[in-house]
Amino acid sequence: MIILGVDPGTIHCGYGIIKLQTGKPVERIASGVIQLQKLDNIPDKLAKIYESLTAMIKSHKPDELSIETAFYGKNVQSALKIGLARGAAILAATNNGLQVSEYSPREIKKSVTGNGAAAKEQVLYMVQTILNEKKTKFPADESDALATALCHSFRLNSSNTKPKNWKDFINNYPERIIG
Amino acid sequence: MIILGVDPGTIHCGYGIIKLQTGKPVERIASGVIQLQKLDNIPDKLAKIYESLTAMIKSHKPDELSIETAFYGKNVQSALKIGLARGAAILAATNNGLQVSEYSPREIKKSVTGNGAAAKEQVLYMVQTILNEKKTKFPADESDALATALCHSFRLNSSNTKPKNWKDFINNYPERIIG
Repeated sequence: MIILGVDPGTIHCGYGIIKLQTGKPVERIASGVIQLQKLDNIPDKLAKIYESLTAMIKSHKPDELSIETAFYGKNVQSALKIGLARGAAILAATNNGLQVSEYSPREIKKSVTGNGAAAKEQVLYMVQTILNEKKTKFPADESDALATALCHSFRLNSSNTKPKNWKDFINNYPERIIG
Repeated sequence: MIILGVDPGTIHCGYGIIKLQTGKPVERIASGVIQLQKLDNIPDKLAKIYESLTAMIKSHKPDELSIETAFYGKNVQSALKIGLARGAAILAATNNGLQVSEYSPREIKKSVTGNGAAAKEQVLYMVQTILNEKKTKFPADESDALATALCHSFRLNSSNTKPKNWKDFINNYPERIIG
């Protein structure tokens, strides 16, 4: 199972692709930030998000998209822009046959760090740890996109094989033990 | 020149296609409302908007998309949803080679009725009058989409041949005279 996670935005749009294999630690296949700050109009930005994610999907063949569901800020103009970027990402996924799952920022943080109000640095630290890439300082948008993909992987795992006790949990998720 | 106007939304998405020909009144080619209320998730809604507009574009071959630029409400969740729908409409246009122009709700109302704060009924009345379809009671989303297309047509006309006086104006825009 390969999962594409996206942290949508019209200035920076983070993406992260991870691979899940039974009995193996989760693996990062690709990740990065689509840079949109030099494009000065919305149609060009959306086309770039759509094209970049479509290219990524064609090359890495993820099965599912995981994306943030909602925006909890107070700024209407920001919400509108994030909506535009989310629309482009979701369409790139559905037009290429991917299932789409949505998670709130709180669910994503909680699933990765155990704390729904975790700071960006805590999310980054856990993303580095889970992916066994402690020396890689992922930019915030990339780290958030990887966290979104990981959140979906934990959800899939927990619905398949819900552990009954800590021993089961540790056996099922070797990558979640911080050495 | 054929113009597609869109009034984006995730419950109802209005569209209107008009044709401009020199010396002839502007003509409505097609218009309607994409019904999205029965779809209960965002990916399905966006896919429906994208597919419906793509089909419309392939069948009527508009040259340009005209769409509302901004949302002036105060509700962040509504802004996010309108952003999603706008993203889908803009992508359907750019992925099919259409130029995209954006107008504020105020500009659209002003261009059609002369009043930037016009009520929905005034917009409908002027859309019916300009298109010479006084007996057609277009639903609000369809009327707004046609108004958005008309707004762009007036903008194109005024940048091509700016009338110097009322006589010129009347000769250039026979469809704007209310009989």
